[in-house]
Amino acid sequence: MLEVILPDGSKKEFDHAVTPMEIAADIGPGLAKATLAGEIDGKVVGFDTKLPEEGTVNLRLLTKKDEEALGVMRHSCAHIMARAVMRLFDGVQLAFGPTIEGGFYYDFDLEHKLSEEDFPAIEAEMKKIIKQDEPFERIERNRDESLKVVKDLGQQYKIEHIETGLKDHASMSFYQQGEFVDLCRGPHVPRPKSIGAFKILSVAGAYWKGDSNNRQLQRLYATAFFNKEDLEAHLAKIEEAKRRDHRVLGKQLDLFSINPLVGQGLILWSPKGTIIRNLLTEFVSEQLKKFEYLPVVTPNIGKVDLYKISGHYPYYKDSQFAPIHQAEDEEYLLKPMNCPHHIMIYKSRPRSYRELPYRLSEFGTVYRYEQSGELNGMTRVRGFTQDDAHIFCTDDQVEDEFRKCIQMTQYVLSSLGLSDYRVRLGFRDPDSGKYVGKEKVWDQAEAALVKVCKNMGITATAEAGEAAFYGPKADFVVNDCLGREWQLGTVQLDYNLPSAERFDLEYIGPDNQPHRPVMIHRAPFGSLERFMGVLIEHFAGAFPLWLAPEQVRILVVSQKFEDYARKVEKELQLAGFRVSGDYRPEKIGAKIRAAQLELIPYMFIIGGREMEEEAVAVRDRIEGDLGSMKIQQAIDKLKEEVENRVVRQVFRGSAGLGTSAASSSEDY
Amino acid sequence: MLEVILPDGSKKEFDHAVTPMEIAADIGPGLAKATLAGEIDGKVVGFDTKLPEEGTVNLRLLTKKDEEALGVMRHSCAHIMARAVMRLFDGVQLAFGPTIEGGFYYDFDLEHKLSEEDFPAIEAEMKKIIKQDEPFERIERNRDESLKVVKDLGQQYKIEHIETGLKDHASMSFYQQGEFVDLCRGPHVPRPKSIGAFKILSVAGAYWKGDSNNRQLQRLYATAFFNKEDLEAHLAKIEEAKRRDHRVLGKQLDLFSINPLVGQGLILWSPKGTIIRNLLTEFVSEQLKKFEYLPVVTPNIGKVDLYKISGHYPYYKDSQFAPIHQAEDEEYLLKPMNCPHHIMIYKSRPRSYRELPYRLSEFGTVYRYEQSGELNGMTRVRGFTQDDAHIFCTDDQVEDEFRKCIQMTQYVLSSLGLSDYRVRLGFRDPDSGKYVGKEKVWDQAEAALVKVCKNMGITATAEAGEAAFYGPKADFVVNDCLGREWQLGTVQLDYNLPSAERFDLEYIGPDNQPHRPVMIHRAPFGSLERFMGVLIEHFAGAFPLWLAPEQVRILVVSQKFEDYARKVEKELQLAGFRVSGDYRPEKIGAKIRAAQLELIPYMFIIGGREMEEEAVAVRDRIEGDLGSMKIQQAIDKLKEEVENRVVRQVFRGSAGLGTSAASSSEDY
Repeated sequence: MLEVILPDGSKKEFDHAVTPMEIAADIGPGLAKATLAGEIDGKVVGFDTKLPEEGTVNLRLLTKKDEEALGVMRHSCAHIMARAVMRLFDGVQLAFGPTIEGGFYYDFDLEHKLSEEDFPAIEAEMKKIIKQDEPFERIERNRDESLKVVKDLGQQYKIEHIETGLKDHASMSFYQQGEFVDLCRGPHVPRPKSIGAFKILSVAGAYWKGDSNNRQLQRLYATAFFNKEDLEAHLAKIEEAKRRDHRVLGKQLDLFSINPLVGQGLILWSPKGTIIRNLLTEFVSEQLKKFEYLPVVTPNIGKVDLYKISGHYPYYKDSQFAPIHQAEDEEYLLKPMNCPHHIMIYKSRPRSYRELPYRLSEFGTVYRYEQSGELNGMTRVRGFTQDDAHIFCTDDQVEDEFRKCIQMTQYVLSSLGLSDYRVRLGFRDPDSGKYVGKEKVWDQAEAALVKVCKNMGITATAEAGEAAFYGPKADFVVNDCLGREWQLGTVQLDYNLPSAERFDLEYIGPDNQPHRPVMIHRAPFGSLERFMGVLIEHFAGAFPLWLAPEQVRILVVSQKFEDYARKVEKELQLAGFRVSGDYRPEKIGAKIRAAQLELIPYMFIIGGREMEEEAVAVRDRIEGDLGSMKIQQAIDKLKEEVENRVVRQVFRGSAGLGTSAASSSEDY
Repeated sequence: MLEVILPDGSKKEFDHAVTPMEIAADIGPGLAKATLAGEIDGKVVGFDTKLPEEGTVNLRLLTKKDEEALGVMRHSCAHIMARAVMRLFDGVQLAFGPTIEGGFYYDFDLEHKLSEEDFPAIEAEMKKIIKQDEPFERIERNRDESLKVVKDLGQQYKIEHIETGLKDHASMSFYQQGEFVDLCRGPHVPRPKSIGAFKILSVAGAYWKGDSNNRQLQRLYATAFFNKEDLEAHLAKIEEAKRRDHRVLGKQLDLFSINPLVGQGLILWSPKGTIIRNLLTEFVSEQLKKFEYLPVVTPNIGKVDLYKISGHYPYYKDSQFAPIHQAEDEEYLLKPMNCPHHIMIYKSRPRSYRELPYRLSEFGTVYRYEQSGELNGMTRVRGFTQDDAHIFCTDDQVEDEFRKCIQMTQYVLSSLGLSDYRVRLGFRDPDSGKYVGKEKVWDQAEAALVKVCKNMGITATAEAGEAAFYGPKADFVVNDCLGREWQLGTVQLDYNLPSAERFDLEYIGPDNQPHRPVMIHRAPFGSLERFMGVLIEHFAGAFPLWLAPEQVRILVVSQKFEDYARKVEKELQLAGFRVSGDYRPEKIGAKIRAAQLELIPYMFIIGGREMEEEAVAVRDRIEGDLGSMKIQQAIDKLKEEVENRVVRQVFRGSAGLGTSAASSSEDY
């Protein structure tokens, strides 16, 4: 007998193997019509998955209203796209076609080179298939039968996959829809009619199983939604993300550049970008002072031996720059992390419990060798500066210090308008060999993290395998204004580097005996480069007043007013503002457009009336004309905005910047 | 006929080859007695050097009063030391024995291991030789005769030197004094009696001709003066320099450390050292802002190709860290200089004449591989941060920009109490191949430097062969309080890196045509590490108030006053001071000694009377007790000292710090 518990708590009993669809039909025909898939004890299954005959299960019936159903439908849509491609082109060999965040793709091997010009035909064919509304049927076959199926289909990649990737599987499943049959775990929706709206987005090259030694395939990226409105909102979001691309804005606003002669993934911060970088580091430095950190400075290299002790060398070897081979027994590494250097400062003299917690901070520039395909502007780089710190403390101090680190990270992120985040606890994967240290020590550290989060009332999700190699961590995963997730700040506990097997750290306790300190690694921004990249996209280049490289632009209506305007410029400079003047003999409209394009927060427009009244006409890049103000009044207004680090988010809609509505930082 | 012009303008004529001594005798017996050497047309010669028989020469007769005579006498003293060593030990092989700054040395190869214990016996033997007062006699021999002389003497190193180093010399000279004969160019003083006072200072290992593949020799360092007072002053200065050794003070005051696991020559800045470093960078940053520089940030590495274009790669190869060999065609270098990176920022977009002068500044950390024997604490390192900047300007702007660079360097150095410096113009050595660029361009650059210095009224000495490889430069050679010279700030003109053969830099002029900018490289400190090392020694660790890591120490006479003292501590903190409190249950005398040892500028001592009167008893590390002051009065006094960056130099005499006299920065 199977007991099924439904979300409303009601129970149903069945004396035979039922499917979610059968249970839906049992409840009512309307529900059966709406059901696309099921969720058994938290795991998504097909509408046609046979449930066990005995025991108790929790069942959710998934309909268009459920986010989980979207993934199932998109996977079905991937099959339909593949079916359309096979109908339109000859000799199509199918590779894989999974769902990904925001959509799905399918990899094909075919002679014809797919291009955007093919998209309308493929989409039309897909529409035809959807209209026919043939059901998705699951077929289970044993190993030999399965091989026969794919051989009969002539699908070479599927044959290879059964022979290698699935070599331990005794049986496998296929999904058939009309003439289209694909080796597939499923699940799928019952019929394609639930696919409300879809769009092929792009085509790109991809290697079979991601290995560049394999044959290159053609990958079609696409997405699908249950209705047209959702698709359009998604496409608008993609467009918006493109408009916010920090690589494009970084060049347009002259914030940074990358030059192949210096090296890929190595950022050259232009003067304007450096202004923002320096303001960010000053802001963090204020916090460091408040929390009593001690700034230090350490070199960018260290002996390979140092990283052998720390464990970075075997662990990070693949993602490191090659060693600098100076002599037989003299090899250096670009430092991949700052911790070993800070540990050397800790060890530079004996430490007493009176000195703990000993908090060493550094804006430390580290280097890691990301694969060139993974590099992306400022957000995936090979050289970056961490707003790093290491706290050496006693066991008793761990909780309090960890709490303060979380607090500082919360404060720093919120101050930049990034208040929408979740905390992800990264624990070790006990089955992986990449973690150093003893199991007991790991359990202790993980328990400490959970306890602090619980006591702070932080809702955190734990993920196995996401730990640093030396200890568990709490990562801040931030949602930007487009709802995209970015991993930024991090706080990490470390019982391993201080251990006798690693750096053998000590302090003399009140008992005059040596004790072992605990280390906390932490970085609220994570990396200045990555953080800057996220900020550019989050603000679409329209930085809050306190961060804007140029805060005010003085615009003269006519060159007659230049003397007065230069006086105003001087006053603003003396008041500490970054200001420039546009004294060109151009029309005022052109000057406003130029300043608006450069996203200057405020324009002070000066004509005859302003000069007479010792005033300026203030124009806001968001709200437009704010009317005339006395100079001091305008300065006071701006000063207040800077001092409070006010965030006024701008969404650049199709109508262009400045005409869209402004929202305060509380709105999201 | 030879015409001899004497310093007073008087002239003498001789119809035969005379020596300086003969001319002295011709003037009078007193002068002949005092004459030790001569100077012909600016070149030091022996008392016994035969002058030409024809022409006109300017002659100075050098006596004890002339600095140049000191070097001649020291060289004679080196011979006497060698003679003494040969008398005392068997089988002594002589190597070289030149004069050096502050004294002389002689290298020996002998079985006996020389130690400080041998010094008294050697010195006694030297005194005996001096007392005998045998004359130094010059002997000239042709090549074959010379070889016979050194073979008869059994001096293997001299034989080798004649056969290799002097292989092109047809004749050479020896100096004989009693039984001692040495291959020697001279000159020497007439008799050893002019050696007033001497001392053997130390013994060290040294390789024959400085090559570590050669045999190791024993080097005796010594010095000599015309009188005992000068020797004692010199020895006191050496002692003082030892007491000021930045390596010792750096450890004692916990300013920095070096760890072999990180690497030799790589500085770990401790928290206290970092406070000073950050204050120095803030101070320079203020100047940069005033002079309208644009800060940038660039990576610590670059592709080898970048340095091939710049010319750093062939030129600096021997003093660079080995390349990072990432892949066949992908090699990186730790950057030895920041200029190529700044050039890449300049080149990141087209430039207009309106942007010039374009001044990019960076506290850029660079790496160079100094030989391990040359490393010395912070003053000779392998990784250092330059207070670097590069100015891109038009030909017309060069003079003005160069002048401003010199002005900024003057201001920065003077503000740190380093007002005693000379400017050394480094020009190229036309015979050396290590300079890039065309001769015409060099001439132009060197002429520009001379012109600016002349217009600024700067007395500068020009030295051939001291230029950077891309252009001529002006170095600030600073005298510290012990009169030692340190090369710190530098300003360099560069017509080469912008050239078509190098980076092909351009700007669009008012004529809408491309033009080539000039570059100026400049760094007022030079390197933060080196500058810090010099500052530690210059101040003997007793930094001016504005730079002191801890500015005020609160000392309570009894723990009864702790509450009030903590209130005072808080007030000082709020006023922006770096302050700590000594609340230990120790005697006040012990607390004062501890603070004095840490060179804390001010101690605020708090007892019952101070608490009653809301006051503090102020104690100055230099002048001692300054009496009681109201809290605000004390704060105001210190604030003024910080704001004016007052330098109050302390010499640590044998009586210890705090009792010696203070002198203001104007005194030296």
